[in-house]
Amino acid sequence: MFAASMIAVDPGRVIADLRELDALTGGAGGARRVAWTEEWEAARRMLKERLASIGLVPAEDEAGNLWARIEGARRDTVALGSHLDSVPHGGWLDGALGVFAGLEILRVLAGADRPATSVALVDWADEEGARFGISLLGSSAVSGRLDAAAVGEVRDAEGITLREAMAAHGVDLDRASLAAVRREDLTAYLELHIEQGPVLAAEGLSVAAVSGTVGVERHRFSFQGQAAHAGTTPMDMRHDAGLAAAELALAIEQIAVGHGGLGTSGVLRFDPGIPTAIPGDAVLTVDLRHANVAELAAMLTETALAAVRIAEARGCHATSELIWRTEPIGFDTALVRLARQACQSVLGSDRCLPSGALHDAAEIAREVPAAMVFCASRRGISHAPEEDSDEHDIAMAVTVFARLAAEVIGRSG
Amino acid sequence: MFAASMIAVDPGRVIADLRELDALTGGAGGARRVAWTEEWEAARRMLKERLASIGLVPAEDEAGNLWARIEGARRDTVALGSHLDSVPHGGWLDGALGVFAGLEILRVLAGADRPATSVALVDWADEEGARFGISLLGSSAVSGRLDAAAVGEVRDAEGITLREAMAAHGVDLDRASLAAVRREDLTAYLELHIEQGPVLAAEGLSVAAVSGTVGVERHRFSFQGQAAHAGTTPMDMRHDAGLAAAELALAIEQIAVGHGGLGTSGVLRFDPGIPTAIPGDAVLTVDLRHANVAELAAMLTETALAAVRIAEARGCHATSELIWRTEPIGFDTALVRLARQACQSVLGSDRCLPSGALHDAAEIAREVPAAMVFCASRRGISHAPEEDSDEHDIAMAVTVFARLAAEVIGRSG
Repeated sequence: MFAASMIAVDPGRVIADLRELDALTGGAGGARRVAWTEEWEAARRMLKERLASIGLVPAEDEAGNLWARIEGARRDTVALGSHLDSVPHGGWLDGALGVFAGLEILRVLAGADRPATSVALVDWADEEGARFGISLLGSSAVSGRLDAAAVGEVRDAEGITLREAMAAHGVDLDRASLAAVRREDLTAYLELHIEQGPVLAAEGLSVAAVSGTVGVERHRFSFQGQAAHAGTTPMDMRHDAGLAAAELALAIEQIAVGHGGLGTSGVLRFDPGIPTAIPGDAVLTVDLRHANVAELAAMLTETALAAVRIAEARGCHATSELIWRTEPIGFDTALVRLARQACQSVLGSDRCLPSGALHDAAEIAREVPAAMVFCASRRGISHAPEEDSDEHDIAMAVTVFARLAAEVIGRSG
Repeated sequence: MFAASMIAVDPGRVIADLRELDALTGGAGGARRVAWTEEWEAARRMLKERLASIGLVPAEDEAGNLWARIEGARRDTVALGSHLDSVPHGGWLDGALGVFAGLEILRVLAGADRPATSVALVDWADEEGARFGISLLGSSAVSGRLDAAAVGEVRDAEGITLREAMAAHGVDLDRASLAAVRREDLTAYLELHIEQGPVLAAEGLSVAAVSGTVGVERHRFSFQGQAAHAGTTPMDMRHDAGLAAAELALAIEQIAVGHGGLGTSGVLRFDPGIPTAIPGDAVLTVDLRHANVAELAAMLTETALAAVRIAEARGCHATSELIWRTEPIGFDTALVRLARQACQSVLGSDRCLPSGALHDAAEIAREVPAAMVFCASRRGISHAPEEDSDEHDIAMAVTVFARLAAEVIGRSG
């Protein structure tokens, strides 16, 4: 049984904070809290004001992550967090929900007896990578995986480097890896986030535990055929690279379904790309995801075999190159079990699903026991102004998260 | 039996003329005789010099077509022609072969007795439409189908209008339709052209008669689904417009094969078109071709039905819009029979195939009995510097064309 040490949060205050943040840095066009911009700083100023009102002064670490602490009887720390930064035209809840849910827990704890374990709130810097394409920046500095040399000279659309943009906000990229010391005290990391997918809404659930994040294999497949005149080349004399790519896109769907994973062709381009020419070249991107490393590897192998088989049948040539990959990360078994128990206790449901999107929790889970809770997303829409969740679901999610935090803070003692 | 009145052409002179034209306005980068440019005029000056050397002074009609005439006993005229203009980086034979083969016939006739029927050589203006996208410009003025108001303000990449470009070469677009009077004397139009496809080369044939030009249905099909996160949306909850478009591209291939026609998807675009998003919108172009009007209509109907079926199965919505269409045009039955007989007589083969590409002959065939002869294209490549034909095939084609012309000039009497 789940023996909750309660933290009596008021979800209404979390929602009010989120509405105010949206009024300040969002609105009809969506959230505009891209990391290393003035509006992101404005969001952080609001958070700092809220912290100040409960007597807490946050500190920024070497990577630009913002930490607030309530000291417990021991230095051992349970961290609660997420990110205030957003994509351009983003949603009001993506990241911000977890930060303000954590704030609400600190608010309650600040007015109560000193906890056995220290509790920290962390607002990770640049989770989205929206401006420079480098996601999970702050959390990867703390996990020890940030390669400053590899990312420092990456430029945004205006030609500004990541190093310059961080410096303009007082962060020295070359010192960012020193933030790793922050993880030394951490005994657990917990994060509440919106699902950003349609599963919970479709199942009529408000909240679920998250088992981990899926692994991703992202590759670019190219087919070389023979460009030719659409009007003069008989069907049986063609080497249509475009149709080869179309076949592979459909094959990937079947491979994903067969393995219970996800497979997406988000980009498909033909060359020369005019209505009257048979495509001589075609490129498609493949994004494969699975929570199980062996299944993910099998999906990639089957995709590569399908590409070769399809190319050969059309007298084309197939090549592929890696875009990006990451292995599946399972959250801490004991913490996931507690998250499920918190769901069961508050909602009477016990759903646990893997996250198909990446989160700071996955980065931190490499070094620190971690777990996540998902709040249902209306229609599964995210990274868009239409992103939304029912207030009832938000309230349930905050309550579950507080229940989980209370349990972990108690146990961590 | 084919009773040829011979015109003793020398194919070597045609090849020599073509080589000189290539040296003047082509070379390693390909032909550069885009209509309404200085190099197109240079090509025409070379043709005019050749004509002058046999005592002929060509006249430009109101649409910029260049006509040279050998007066026969009657005003009735058999026209031979093609076009000197090319696409950028075009081939040395596309269009030019037919013009210089016609010139060679005039050269022979100019030194012989006055023919029973008048014979004209025509170099059509702007067959390719390479600069303004308006193909068959000069021949459509003569056929009476040029709509000056509809095309005059079309601009090239530099913002120059077609009207302005024509005026710079002394042609008044608003008077171009007066060129239609030129067709009044025409009793037949004959054109030699390279195949621009791989069929004759694959069959080991040098020359063939052309039955007509195929009809074309060119449409843009759009699918509307739901853009969503590639990592968070289960396979069975997707509305992937990209996969719908991929399925339609493959369905079109089957439809074309089933009807013995041609079907090409030359453009396929996904939106938002990023690796991590399920395409919410997808567009593909469909180019369907068939020599038989009923088969072509059936292909289009099946394509539209396939689009709806595919969209419904994926919870997407399909729409389509017409880009361009033209009906199949059959060449004059008697003239096609004579063209086949000329092939049989010279080569011992009797191949007749439809043209999948458009030609001035198809435009003129609307009003005047017309026929074409194809010369084999090496590897079927055209509209590229690599375009080429074996000299043996060129010689055979010129010989067949002269045999056909002689027969028609004789019969037209």
